[in-house]
Amino acid sequence: MADEALFLLLHNEMVAGLYRAAEQGEGVSGAGAALGALESMGFRVGQGLIERFTKDTARFKDELDIMKFICKDFWTTVFRKQIDNLRTNHQGIYVLQDNKFRLLTQMSAGKQYLEHAPKYLAFTCGLIRGGLSNLGIKSIVTAEVSSMPACKFQVMIQKM
Amino acid sequence: MADEALFLLLHNEMVAGLYRAAEQGEGVSGAGAALGALESMGFRVGQGLIERFTKDTARFKDELDIMKFICKDFWTTVFRKQIDNLRTNHQGIYVLQDNKFRLLTQMSAGKQYLEHAPKYLAFTCGLIRGGLSNLGIKSIVTAEVSSMPACKFQVMIQKM
Repeated sequence: MADEALFLLLHNEMVAGLYRAAEQGEGVSGAGAALGALESMGFRVGQGLIERFTKDTARFKDELDIMKFICKDFWTTVFRKQIDNLRTNHQGIYVLQDNKFRLLTQMSAGKQYLEHAPKYLAFTCGLIRGGLSNLGIKSIVTAEVSSMPACKFQVMIQKM
Repeated sequence: MADEALFLLLHNEMVAGLYRAAEQGEGVSGAGAALGALESMGFRVGQGLIERFTKDTARFKDELDIMKFICKDFWTTVFRKQIDNLRTNHQGIYVLQDNKFRLLTQMSAGKQYLEHAPKYLAFTCGLIRGGLSNLGIKSIVTAEVSSMPACKFQVMIQKM
């Protein structure tokens, strides 16, 4: 529990710190820059985590096998739960649904905070993208929230 | 192990991100600003952690009792080990020595990196100060490294 608190607190500080810096810096483009910076941080942390995790695991069979690893082992380490639902169109699009996303459960579930949700998703989009990248999969990851604290991450695989 | 990796990676990203921002921003005063920002982040995370940790603990006897809590429980949660040595002059100065400080063990122990050590200590100085602050103790916390990865944190209690 204490570890989880440490991660949540650090994540909040990163979000707050980057938004503060962006506000002081560039005006309107500030929020976009902060989201970009959060995503990049997530990307590098995702890369680093995957390096450590997969040191002793067996080779993955295929893309779906990798996605399952992200939904189970990877997600559990970071968020203390698995992804609740993984869907795919078998053409390179995956949707990962978390019905109780840990970085959103700290916020009130009311609609009035819905507009702040993207701040708390950008780091995790990067985390997924970085993890996949180190497993040889190039992707674009986006997130959407319809009713908090549930959210969906959409992964679009970029064929090379 | 995975949790620890997450903390170490996030911490590294914060250090790198703040230094990058400082370099782009203000030139010479940049590094000082980055250290200040790291210390403030540590302060708020320390406050948050103490709030969670002490929810169910007994009231502390005195100042020394609080310092021991920081050296044992608090340190173990964040760094997976206790402080190796706690000394005090019984007049409000405490020296906490960690012979193998977790945020420095990632770096080579050579002398050539000694100049970079302060970057990796600022957050933790804030962490201690924030923790103590939420336990009603105002302090100034500084750190020094003589030979990596050992380091000493000096806590000066500010009498109110």
